[in-house]
Amino acid sequence: MRKFVSDSARRNFILQRSFQHLRQLLQRPLAASQSRSLSSTPVLDFPSSMASSNPSASPVTLDTVNPKVLKCEYAVRGEIVTLAQRLQEELQDKPGSHSFDEILYCNIGNPQSLGQQPITFFREVLALCDHPGILDRSETQGLFSADAVERAWQILDQIPGRATGAYSHSQGVKGLRDAIAAGIEARDGFPADSNDIFLTDGASPAVHMMMQLLIRNENDGIFCPIPQYPLYSASIALHGGTLVPYYLNEATGWGLEISELKKQLDAAKSKGITVRALVVINPGNPTGQVLAEENQRDILEFCKKEGLVLLADEVYQENIYVPEKSFHSFKKVSRSMGYGEQDISLVSFQSVSKGYYGECGKRGGYMEVTGFHADIREQIYKMASVNLCSNISGQILASLVMSPPKVGDESYESYCAEKEGILSSLARRAKALEDAFNNLEGVSCNKAEGAMYLFPRIHLSQKAIKAAEAVNTSPDAFYCRRLLNATGIVVVPGSGFGQVPGTWHFRCTILPQEDKIPAIISRLTDFHKGFMDEFRG
Amino acid sequence: MRKFVSDSARRNFILQRSFQHLRQLLQRPLAASQSRSLSSTPVLDFPSSMASSNPSASPVTLDTVNPKVLKCEYAVRGEIVTLAQRLQEELQDKPGSHSFDEILYCNIGNPQSLGQQPITFFREVLALCDHPGILDRSETQGLFSADAVERAWQILDQIPGRATGAYSHSQGVKGLRDAIAAGIEARDGFPADSNDIFLTDGASPAVHMMMQLLIRNENDGIFCPIPQYPLYSASIALHGGTLVPYYLNEATGWGLEISELKKQLDAAKSKGITVRALVVINPGNPTGQVLAEENQRDILEFCKKEGLVLLADEVYQENIYVPEKSFHSFKKVSRSMGYGEQDISLVSFQSVSKGYYGECGKRGGYMEVTGFHADIREQIYKMASVNLCSNISGQILASLVMSPPKVGDESYESYCAEKEGILSSLARRAKALEDAFNNLEGVSCNKAEGAMYLFPRIHLSQKAIKAAEAVNTSPDAFYCRRLLNATGIVVVPGSGFGQVPGTWHFRCTILPQEDKIPAIISRLTDFHKGFMDEFRG
Repeated sequence: MRKFVSDSARRNFILQRSFQHLRQLLQRPLAASQSRSLSSTPVLDFPSSMASSNPSASPVTLDTVNPKVLKCEYAVRGEIVTLAQRLQEELQDKPGSHSFDEILYCNIGNPQSLGQQPITFFREVLALCDHPGILDRSETQGLFSADAVERAWQILDQIPGRATGAYSHSQGVKGLRDAIAAGIEARDGFPADSNDIFLTDGASPAVHMMMQLLIRNENDGIFCPIPQYPLYSASIALHGGTLVPYYLNEATGWGLEISELKKQLDAAKSKGITVRALVVINPGNPTGQVLAEENQRDILEFCKKEGLVLLADEVYQENIYVPEKSFHSFKKVSRSMGYGEQDISLVSFQSVSKGYYGECGKRGGYMEVTGFHADIREQIYKMASVNLCSNISGQILASLVMSPPKVGDESYESYCAEKEGILSSLARRAKALEDAFNNLEGVSCNKAEGAMYLFPRIHLSQKAIKAAEAVNTSPDAFYCRRLLNATGIVVVPGSGFGQVPGTWHFRCTILPQEDKIPAIISRLTDFHKGFMDEFRG
Repeated sequence: MRKFVSDSARRNFILQRSFQHLRQLLQRPLAASQSRSLSSTPVLDFPSSMASSNPSASPVTLDTVNPKVLKCEYAVRGEIVTLAQRLQEELQDKPGSHSFDEILYCNIGNPQSLGQQPITFFREVLALCDHPGILDRSETQGLFSADAVERAWQILDQIPGRATGAYSHSQGVKGLRDAIAAGIEARDGFPADSNDIFLTDGASPAVHMMMQLLIRNENDGIFCPIPQYPLYSASIALHGGTLVPYYLNEATGWGLEISELKKQLDAAKSKGITVRALVVINPGNPTGQVLAEENQRDILEFCKKEGLVLLADEVYQENIYVPEKSFHSFKKVSRSMGYGEQDISLVSFQSVSKGYYGECGKRGGYMEVTGFHADIREQIYKMASVNLCSNISGQILASLVMSPPKVGDESYESYCAEKEGILSSLARRAKALEDAFNNLEGVSCNKAEGAMYLFPRIHLSQKAIKAAEAVNTSPDAFYCRRLLNATGIVVVPGSGFGQVPGTWHFRCTILPQEDKIPAIISRLTDFHKGFMDEFRG
């Protein structure tokens, strides 16, 4: 685990610098004397502890902040994005100040920020639910499709008092959960229960909720793929647990091997770690692979045998780009194996941010929670209720995504055309970028079977590695920063996702609009040639 | 702190029962043997710890769940609401099965669930931003006000690529934060900076974020009013800190006294607690008082002197019902005292859920963060970025709430009429319910100067207290359950908010529509008479 060690060393270095800086600042004395007053109200009464009340110069400094927050990292919006934002401001203030005229954000799965258009039917329904006053007006017939109007009425009738501005049930509006459960049944061919659905503001809060439920302290481990989407490492750090890595096999197309799981589980156990759950991201982020059903069966069997909760990140379930692969939910595979509620604790995460809809800004999503005791489900419900409910527009959109227009609906054909247009274009972009990466010297790139990313490996020379070390950065971050400065293309260093020590990668989304792809490839290729030449050993 | 002790005893009792129940369930053996496999991937490498890998029958049980989750309580959606939902189902299945024909939810500040209508202008703008395709259509002119169309264009122009379906900057769309900062300046007469604004999915996630930042362990304390809104106790419990109570003085209209703060601070210090922040809810929840400016100055001085972060819950800033009081933000008061960034760390929470707008389901809100070092602000930004951003509709609504229609705008007059209609009606309802409570035997109720709640004190007989103990519940919960079963009115026991030990209260919203208030008062009065007679000592 050299990677984590070096990260930690770098962080300590940064922290030490920050502390020195802070200590030079503001050393205000704290007033100490407090007059004791008599009162009849009770005072805090609990066992005394060892901590001393230690007043510091400022209420919150880097040495008094929650260290779990310091430990948390989220590369997708990290340093590289801060640099990109600065370059963008420079371009706005001084057009022509750089050799490129726009920043191309390939750092994050944010399709609509790069020009992808929303699905018209979904937006029609959302607008009508936001302003139901127009549903009965004659002008509305000319502006909205008939099935959008009908669907809006259906949805409003499912919301008590038609109040889209009211808090809903903490799990989400019952009628919308019914629609989602029906959508899951149609997808899987196995029953789904709306009582198992928890609607959330995107998948991220759902993941946090499960981490909060499971992690008691640093001896609780969560199995995560390496490379992983850094929400997982960030959430585990914030909740004070330990990330237990299992490495995907790059040589077999980011294969998930049970032998690796067993090896890592044993290693964790020998360190005193109780591994509580296994995170699987399928289709993979940042790795883009789609699991074979056979592999999923092995994973389920492993979780059952080892008593692990399976946390299945299935937010890219609609993003499949190769004919030989298809998406199978872990719930479907488990039920097809005969596993029921008693056999496997399974949480499936879904989001409106991905798929062909890409509605990241709406913050909608859900988790389907199966195989937990009623007592534990009550705890999950309680956690959901502390935040009252997720946003209703996001809830509505989550239900639409799981129950889109059907044959015969007025919008059906245009909906299908929009959906297929987006997905086929994404497939072409994935292929074009994959080919381009594989054409670069010293770069190898697995196929993007699904999701929205490529994760090419770059073989860097010792000279490049030394140059990176000289500026106190990791070699992949060094490469990505150089790429950004030279081309305006923003990608995320592999070190933000984890990688086998000594290997270097970056994550690049397939999301720029299709007409931009040739220019991206050309700029990237030129940059890469120059970089390789500069650091030829 | 008798209240917390008895709560804890009750919880332990419940837990013991649950554990017994669970132990009788499912004792599946865990497979133990794992074949070790050879592989070249690195294994988990960190200092060994004392924890043992302790397989349990099921992956998650009440004795393996995070104990902080078990400790967390949220009465506003607790047992009483579960009972109410059951009664509602019974009424639906068997009309006439109870002596009332509907459940009146007075447990939660959820205005639109009880029939309050949203502000038309806000909903027009939201609908247009959801479906911008109709902005240019001629039919739209007939359906939407001209200033709503104009505002929608303005907002879309502030969003990069007009993409309301894209993740925004992690703090929220810059242009919307500008509008909010301008609204704060107009409100306070002091500068506000859009870089200090963090848009959030309602105020609750913002509160969690600050708790996560501040709380390191159980020796970190957060000052909270008692009674308090249980989001605070829940969040402190989830983050593993200690709630340090300060009692509001019921006899002086829920006065916040500096002498009480000093006393409780000393008590906490003597127990080894480092108090990090002071929560003030103004206008008060559940207590409805509005702080005087003089009092706010004293609080700010106290925080400055003691080095406490001031967490100012100002979500009810528009809900003021008495002419002699007005809302002053802590930011304004601090700046009027000459306190700047160096003097006080202040976080102000605002939400679209309250005020005259009451848009709970939209999950919009923001926090204004001032007086923190750049290093700490970076940490807050990082925490925000892990969840990517808050929902864009909520962001738009938060900007609208802080920059509503102005004189001369087409919607101005109808907007004012809607706003004044709601606020004046709320004031009348508050007064009617307050008078009604004060007319009940053994009940005293302070004025609702602001917010959305009354928190009457009920003097219960020893006979009633004994009857409650006999069914293993607190006397106020006993009263509330009886009230619900007899009348369908849902209120929340004072023990969910905290109260001086030996006193009993409940929280009742002022939100049922005005035409229902006489019936509520009549049913409540009848019930109360019967209850008092039944338990006359």
